[in-house]
Formats: sequence, structure tokens, C-alpha cells
Amino acid sequence: MVKTNQPYADIVADICERVRRETRHGTVANYIPSLARVPRSKLGIALATVDGDIVTAGDADEPFSIQSVSKVFTLALALERHGSRLWRRVGLEPSGNPFNSLVQLEYENGLPRNPFINAGAIVVTDALTTVEADAKGVIRDTMRALSGNPAVDFDDEVAASEAAHGHRNAALAHFLKSHGNLNSDVETVLDTYFHQCALAMSCIDLAKAALPLANRGVHPLSGERVMPMRRSKRINALMMTCGLYDAVGSFAFRVGMPAKSGVGGGIIGVIPGNFAVCVWSPALDRSGNSCAGSKALELLTTKTGNSVF
Amino acid sequence: MVKTNQPYADIVADICERVRRETRHGTVANYIPSLARVPRSKLGIALATVDGDIVTAGDADEPFSIQSVSKVFTLALALERHGSRLWRRVGLEPSGNPFNSLVQLEYENGLPRNPFINAGAIVVTDALTTVEADAKGVIRDTMRALSGNPAVDFDDEVAASEAAHGHRNAALAHFLKSHGNLNSDVETVLDTYFHQCALAMSCIDLAKAALPLANRGVHPLSGERVMPMRRSKRINALMMTCGLYDAVGSFAFRVGMPAKSGVGGGIIGVIPGNFAVCVWSPALDRSGNSCAGSKALELLTTKTGNSVF
Amino acid sequence: MVKTNQPYADIVADICERVRRETRHGTVANYIPSLARVPRSKLGIALATVDGDIVTAGDADEPFSIQSVSKVFTLALALERHGSRLWRRVGLEPSGNPFNSLVQLEYENGLPRNPFINAGAIVVTDALTTVEADAKGVIRDTMRALSGNPAVDFDDEVAASEAAHGHRNAALAHFLKSHGNLNSDVETVLDTYFHQCALAMSCIDLAKAALPLANRGVHPLSGERVMPMRRSKRINALMMTCGLYDAVGSFAFRVGMPAKSGVGGGIIGVIPGNFAVCVWSPALDRSGNSCAGSKALELLTTKTGNSVF
Amino acid sequence: MVKTNQPYADIVADICERVRRETRHGTVANYIPSLARVPRSKLGIALATVDGDIVTAGDADEPFSIQSVSKVFTLALALERHGSRLWRRVGLEPSGNPFNSLVQLEYENGLPRNPFINAGAIVVTDALTTVEADAKGVIRDTMRALSGNPAVDFDDEVAASEAAHGHRNAALAHFLKSHGNLNSDVETVLDTYFHQCALAMSCIDLAKAALPLANRGVHPLSGERVMPMRRSKRINALMMTCGLYDAVGSFAFRVGMPAKSGVGGGIIGVIPGNFAVCVWSPALDRSGNSCAGSKALELLTTKTGNSVF
Repeated sequence: MVKTNQPYADIVADICERVRRETRHGTVANYIPSLARVPRSKLGIALATVDGDIVTAGDADEPFSIQSVSKVFTLALALERHGSRLWRRVGLEPSGNPFNSLVQLEYENGLPRNPFINAGAIVVTDALTTVEADAKGVIRDTMRALSGNPAVDFDDEVAASEAAHGHRNAALAHFLKSHGNLNSDVETVLDTYFHQCALAMSCIDLAKAALPLANRGVHPLSGERVMPMRRSKRINALMMTCGLYDAVGSFAFRVGMPAKSGVGGGIIGVIPGNFAVCVWSPALDRSGNSCAGSKALELLTTKTGNSVF
Repeated sequence: MVKTNQPYADIVADICERVRRETRHGTVANYIPSLARVPRSKLGIALATVDGDIVTAGDADEPFSIQSVSKVFTLALALERHGSRLWRRVGLEPSGNPFNSLVQLEYENGLPRNPFINAGAIVVTDALTTVEADAKGVIRDTMRALSGNPAVDFDDEVAASEAAHGHRNAALAHFLKSHGNLNSDVETVLDTYFHQCALAMSCIDLAKAALPLANRGVHPLSGERVMPMRRSKRINALMMTCGLYDAVGSFAFRVGMPAKSGVGGGIIGVIPGNFAVCVWSPALDRSGNSCAGSKALELLTTKTGNSVF
Repeated sequence: MVKTNQPYADIVADICERVRRETRHGTVANYIPSLARVPRSKLGIALATVDGDIVTAGDADEPFSIQSVSKVFTLALALERHGSRLWRRVGLEPSGNPFNSLVQLEYENGLPRNPFINAGAIVVTDALTTVEADAKGVIRDTMRALSGNPAVDFDDEVAASEAAHGHRNAALAHFLKSHGNLNSDVETVLDTYFHQCALAMSCIDLAKAALPLANRGVHPLSGERVMPMRRSKRINALMMTCGLYDAVGSFAFRVGMPAKSGVGGGIIGVIPGNFAVCVWSPALDRSGNSCAGSKALELLTTKTGNSVF
Repeated sequence: MVKTNQPYADIVADICERVRRETRHGTVANYIPSLARVPRSKLGIALATVDGDIVTAGDADEPFSIQSVSKVFTLALALERHGSRLWRRVGLEPSGNPFNSLVQLEYENGLPRNPFINAGAIVVTDALTTVEADAKGVIRDTMRALSGNPAVDFDDEVAASEAAHGHRNAALAHFLKSHGNLNSDVETVLDTYFHQCALAMSCIDLAKAALPLANRGVHPLSGERVMPMRRSKRINALMMTCGLYDAVGSFAFRVGMPAKSGVGGGIIGVIPGNFAVCVWSPALDRSGNSCAGSKALELLTTKTGNSVF
């Protein structure tokens, strides 16, 4: 049974109130219709503590398109299958470039800088498709298990739209293939990738799913070890240095927690030893991170005094 | 009076023993003779806890050239003088490029990515020279005060060598000047910059000097507030995302603490709420970070279980 | 009936003799098997004067894969259909980058630098496919007409191999599509592009086909105006500044004539008012230009005194 | 005695009339006051034929700041001293980047792409200063001899202004020095470079000075061989592929002659075997080439039918 932690509940409610006006700023992603029509007024927060408490505010139980937030979980899956061999195919460094850039990939011969830029995430997805006959199913089932919500599923309309407008990602995939850094065929990898991005999950779902990263690899809600401690720390490190597109530095500076954002407006973050959190608000700043979401997380570390720094 | 913390003392001694063989790897910086002739066998560790304990191993009391480690302290000084206006002249993001690169600076019109790459550090030094008649003296006196060691001083031979071989930094300074992002004259800024890099300090000096960053801005040894809590957290965030040249990602991944390295072979790091540490070993890996030093810090977070992640 | 010009015949025969040893240098293109197995000893020269004389040496009548030489002719076709509007979609400047680079294309928002790098040629082919139901047929028929050889045809094996190994070009096409600079669908454009590159023609065929560029737009063999004088001069200008991959400068320096090369080892060149020439030798230098072919053209301008400079 | 060629005289007079309205477009270089205050209405043309005729129009006898036009002549001087060894220090290819860019220079380890971008010209000037005790004097005397005008001299105010505002060039010089591609000291090279750019010459002076390039290396006015035929052709080739900043392609496309421009608004061009020409009008287009000057040369090749293509 989910308990409630009153101090966190008050803080989260207060933050939700205070950042509501931030939802007027920024731009809702409009490259596909199904994202463009999400109302900018949506705002949700869910915080799950390592003690199993969950506190929420706003539209915390409404599913949204998780987009690049999925990259954290497919990375964990690929690391489980391939271990550190995965790092021969993708780097660990911030790119200093836009998330969908081909420039660095060309200079660096098809080795993506890190698993959270698009090129790197496509390689990670490829690593999964080469060992899983039904990679899409595995990803979906993992998200169901981690969130404890069997209703988690793909939004097929979003997946189809992504595919129809996915020429930039297709360019990345073909480029990776031309450098021998894609083992499955381009179509399979892109189909899996577009589906993982099209998972529909709520703030509550994602906060629960991220909890093992706040708890050294053990899921507090099930008591099961989801990954070794070392891996949870490393994924946190990658979120810290590469998780916020080209705003990792200013996010670390302002917020101070490992986090991963998506263009659907969601951001997950963790304070190791304390909690996992997911915020959602669709309007994005220039770097592609949720305006109200970033602000909410900034207030959260300020009010709880819980930054990692 | 300095106390000793036995558990940390044992760990530090053990680490010093275990990483000694790492001193055989890598290359001692050889662009100036005074750095090139430092024996690669040098190895020191000093750890200073927020409770005022200091434990050391190896050559922890031998002064070395702090080089880019100085950038952390001049940044703190410039932020004290200019506050957040400083961020109009220098960014907060990892560069994804070599520390002395001009490429990004040209694409981004003379605004350096962050204060820890050379271009950014030169802007920070300029910010100091415009408000301090004797910026060099201020920097030296600050390092004396923070380390509690009145003998801290510049190595004039190193400073002179840096100037004689500093054409790359001169190119950066002139380029910044051509973009209107240097207020003092090029010669003054470079002279100050070459001197700050030429400060000679020991691991003990630097571990003590970094302590306020581990203690939310208050220096444990004097009880004085050196900077606001917010600033200490922010400098830690910048070290985490920008402090290790182009190896910030892999350093966060392996080590998991905010840190700043120098080509003299020193690295300072902090675990907020716990300790500041300085390691020194002159031989550098390809990214310009001390081989044995990085390994020592990796063992330290592993053994103490004290990574920020 | 084709006449022979004795002085040119002697020069061409002599050059063929002298550059034969150059065929030992360089590397035959090996990204597809059908190119890789062409013997490096092949060497042909055909020179066609504006007076209608044709002189040849070596394997001048053996068909080879014309590859990027085709870009000159599809450009002429696209300019005939679209006029100067074409230049809204592709630039006129040397790229200073490798022919298949995506870097500049990203920085310049999907507008290729010129029609002779791959990205630009793909845009040109797209311009043709949008107005021609059977663009491939139009290209083939044009080459038959210009060369006066109804046997000119695609090498289907080469076209199929190009498609199977064409991930780099697919990346370029999808990238152009993502920037709205491709109107037809990616598959159609690539199929046409791979076929135009897979045309099999001899030195004699190509020298004849290039003759209008040496004769202000009129084909000397038919007396027909193939294009306005202005266009022939402009295509020559583009060959001069963009026709030799990233070796345009040194080619102009050494050889001094407008020319276009292909990775099949062919190079066409023109001395306006005098002649068109085609050389063929499969082994390429680092820039992707035929070693023996470049040398042959250098000797030709030296011996005839006919450089444009 | 200078003769007059009536057909050319009529064409030049007509062009001067027709391009006068173009002087309203573009921007006069304003980075130094002495250039900024030149009236945009200035317009001059001088054409010197290989037969020794000279025809002029407008302000053809008024001295202006030749700026980068000087690079052609210092290149000829350096080639005379160093021969083809010079090409070990500077390339032959168009850069595809702005004339004062540091980006490519960094990627290519301090080897400038060609002698007409600033970095390359600084290397050429350095090559001269290492073998000439008074390189400035040699350059000035050469320009006096080639133009037949002993009054040609430096504009000291321009030279001093260039030095005061020359931080970008200083950055290039220090960067070259840091890569070991500058033998003299930075100050000497820059002083020489700023002076060569500050030469004040008229259209008549420059058209005469460029004549050997139109006449295979022999100066028609003196009958003396100024350079080997081969070198004059090669310098023309370099002008064609690298002479117009980042507009070489469109200039070749529109105008079709080897040419070199300067930010003072001058452009020299040659039609080998026919004439050398110099136009001057201070207002520049975005690429840094004279608006009215480019248009005048375009009309000249159109009206005389004398493009090299």
C-alpha cells in the first residue's frame, strides 16, 4: 500500500501551485500533430521516496508521451544484456551539440558521444533488437513492471507519426549503418525506437519506474534488485552529464540532480538515497526541456535542500 | 589543531599503495621544461573532512604546479565581485571539445562555453583584473588564506615558461578581445592567467582550500563563510559537468564526484557534506587528467561508498 | 564521319604511354564489388575537338562506370527544366569538405553547397524526378543522344550494389527530406541517383557528350544547340570550382581546366573553344580522383599549352 | 607611351556608367575609421591590355587601400624566394569558410587552406620576413616597379589602425606560432602584414601591376619576365579557386575570370592572353567583395565575350 509523506506532499503541492504560471512560457513540440495538440496547461508532479511513499500534484496520473525519457530505461536493458561491451559502440561524454546533430557523429566516425543523444539511443535500441526477437514487447513489459502499471502501452498514433516525420532519425540510422555501428536493419531499429518514444505513461508511472535509480538499484516497491548498485550510480552519472540535451550544465547549476527529459514535456530526476521524481508540462524551452518542469525541479531541490551538491 | 580520522586514514593509505603502479602510465606534461622534469613517481593524497580532520599519504606536502585547478578559485573570486552578471560573458555548458579549442568560440561569437575551458578561464581572469589593481596578489593571498599556508606562492620559472610558450592562450585572448569579451589589455590578462596557473601548492594546501565547497560555503578550519551555500553548490555543479576537460562524462561515470584537474597532475574533488580531497601524480592520460589521480579518486568513492550518485 | 587530328593524336598517344606507370599508384574504389574488380591497368583517353575530330589512346572505347561524372549532365537537365530557380535549393560554392559530408549540410540547414557534392547532386536528381515521370529513362536517353551511342545503358549490377551499400547517401537523402529540400520520396530519388551513377560509358562516349561545354553550348557533331552559351560557361565555372571533390584547388593549380571526376576512375575536362577530353584509369588518389587520369590531363595542358590560365 | 584601345575604352566607359547605381548597395568596411570614411560613391575602372594599352573610367587614378589584393603580390614574392617548398606550409584548396576563420586552421593543425585567406597570407608574409631584412620595403618597391609608379606607398594611418584593431589577425598569428608555422616573431609578421594591406594604389597602378599574370609572366610595359609562365598560370588558378573570399564559386559562375578582391573595395582580375583589370568601389557585399566592382567585371566578361569559360 502506498503511504503518503506529509512534508514532501506539502512541498510538492506548493511547487505545483507556484510553477503553474510557467506553463505559459515556451513552446509545445509541434513536429507531429499528436504532440502539438496536448494542452500547454497540463502540469503534473509525482515524487516517490525510497521508503515507498508517493506524493503527487496536478495531472500526475495522466499519461503523456515519454519520448526521450525512455532512453534511460532502454539503456538499462541494453546494459543488462551486453554489459560494458556496449561502451565500445557509444561514448560517455556530453556532446556539446544539439541532440539530433550529425556533425559530431561524422567527425567521430559513427561513434555517438553518449546514449542519450538520438544517435546513441538508436545504437542502444539496436543493441536490444539484436538480442530480443520482440524488443518492443520487452521494453513495454519492462515499463509495466517497473511502474507496477499493467496498462502502460504504446500510443500507436504517436508511433506512426514519429515514423512519418522521422527523416532526421532515419538519416542518423543510415549514417550509423554506413559506419558499421548498426547491426539490425534500419527499419527494425527505427520502428522499435519510434515505439519506445511513443510509450504513454503518467508522472506516477515514471516516478515509480525511476525509483531503483534512487535506491542503488533495488526497487523499493517490490524489494527486488533491478540492477547492480554500480549500474544505477553510473546511469545517474550519465543523466547528470548528458541527460538534459544541451542544457546539462545549466540544469546541474540550477537544479543539481541527475535527470532525463523528453520533448513530450516530461522530466524524471533522482536524489540518490531519497527519492525519484517526475514532472510533466508540455511547453519546452529552447533546449527542448519542459519550462515548468525544470522550474519545479529547481524549487524542489531548493526547498528540500536535497541537491547532490 | 588538526585531528586525524582513522578510517579515512587507512583508506587513503591503502589507495596510495594500490595506485602507485598507475604512475607508470600516461605522459608528464612536457610543453614547458619546468613541468617536464617533475618525476613521474610523485604521488600524493590529502583528504580533509568537514569535521576538520586531515589525512594524507605519499607526497602530500610537496608543492606542485596547480595549473587549471586554479580556475575553481578565480571563478569563486570573480563571482564574489561580479555576481551572476559574470554569466553574460561565459556559459555554463560542457564544451564537448578540447580545453584549448578555438572552434566553438568562433561559432559562438567569442562567448566561451564554461569557465573551466581556457577561453572561459581567461574571461574570468579578465573579470578579476578589471576590478583588482593587483589581481595576481589577490589570487595568491586568497590561496594563502584558504589553505592556511602563508608560504603559498607563484613559481616564477613556471610563469615565465608559460608566457614564453603561451601562443595558444595568446590566440584565445586576442580572439576574445576581437569579440569585445576582454576588457583589460591582452598582456595584463595573460600575465595574471599564467601566474594563477603557476601557483605552487601541495595536496594538503589544496584539500584545505577546497573544503568550503564540501561544506556549503563555510570553511571548517576557520568557521568563516567563504561564499553563500548557493554558490558552493553551483561551483560543484560546474566541476561535475565541466571540470575534467573532455572526460567529464567518464569521470562522473567512474568516480562520481565534482572535481577539477590540472596538467600539473593535481585533481581536487569534493563529496558535499563529507570531505574535500586532492590527489597529485604528474603523468596524464589522453584527456589531460592525472592517471593515478583519477584512479585514486575512483577507489576513494568505491571504498567510502561516498559518490554523489 | 569522324576525322583525326594528327598533332592531338600524337600528344594523346604519347601521354597514354607516359602515364601508364601511374596506374600502379592509388586505390581502386572497393565499396562495391563491381567497381573493386575492375583491373587497375585499364587506361583510356579520348579527345574530341570542337572541329569534330576525335583522337584516342588505350582503352578509350571500353565502357566504365561513370559515377559522379553523371552529375554534370543531370545538372544540365535540371537547369533546362527549372532554370535559375534550381539555385534556391543548391549553392554555387566549393564546400571545402569531403564529397559525402553531412556536416556542412547540417550547419547550413539542408542547403547543399554545390551540385557536385553528393547532397547537391541528390537535390538535382530530385528536381528531375519531380518533373519527369521516367527520370532514369530521360537521363539514359540524354547520354545516348549526346554521345551518339544508342548502346549506352545502366549497369544494373552496379546500380543494385550502390543501393545495397548506399546508407551514406540514404542518410543524406533523409536529412535533405527532413529539411524540406527533397520533394519526391527518398526511395525514388535514390533509385534514380544510383542509376545515373551506374551508367556505363566509354571515354569516347563521354568526350563526345561533353563537347557542347567546349563549344559554347552547341554540339559540334550534330550542329544542335544543346544549351545556351551562358549555361555552358556556368557549368564550366562550377566544374572549375567544385568538380574535383576536395582537390579542386590543386587540380586547377596543376591542370588548369574545368573538369569533373568520378570514383569509377573517369574524368571529363574541357578547354573552351578547343576540345573536350575524357580520361579513365580506375585507381584513385586520396581525394577520389583518378591518379593516372589527373596526370594525363596535367600533361595535356602542358603539352598543348591550352590551360584556361 | 601608353596607347588607347578604342573598343575597350568604350566598353569600360559604358560599364562605369551602368554600374554607378550599384554603388548605393552594400556596406563600406567600417572596422577602422580610415576605411569607413571613404565615400561610397567612388568608382574606378582601369583595364590594361597585354599590348600595352590602358583604358580607364571614373576614379581610376585615385589611390585606395588595396588590402587583400596585396596577397597576390606577396605570394609571388614568396614563391620567388622559396619555390614550391612554400606549399609545405600553406595549402591550395578553397576553404569553404570565412576568410578570417580559425576553425579549419585548428582542425588542420595550423596549416592554412590557401594563401589568400588571412591565415595563409600571414604565413606567406612570414616566409618573406624570414629571408628579407626589410620585407616591408621589398613589398613596397615591388609594387612601385610593377605599377611603374614610384609614388606608391603605405598609408601609415591605415597601417596603424589595422594594428590597433587587429586582434583577430593577432589571434591567427599566435595560433600559427603555437603550431610551429610562423618562423619570425608575431609582432614582425603582423607589422609587415598590416603594412602590405595598407598600401595605397590606384586602379591604374593595380591593373598595370597585374599585367604579368595576363601575359604568361612577362610584363608588357617593360618587356621583362617577372615570373615563369608556370607560376603566373598557377597564381591565376589560385585566384580562380580561392580569390574571392567565400564567393569564389558564384564569382566564377557570374564573371568567369581569375580575380582577387580586398575589403578596401578593389578587385583585380585577368583574362590570360588579353588583359588585366582593376575595379574599385568601396561598398561591399556580404562576402566582402565590392558590389559595383563585381558587377562591373561581370559586365566586362559579358560584353567582351572574354570569360575563361
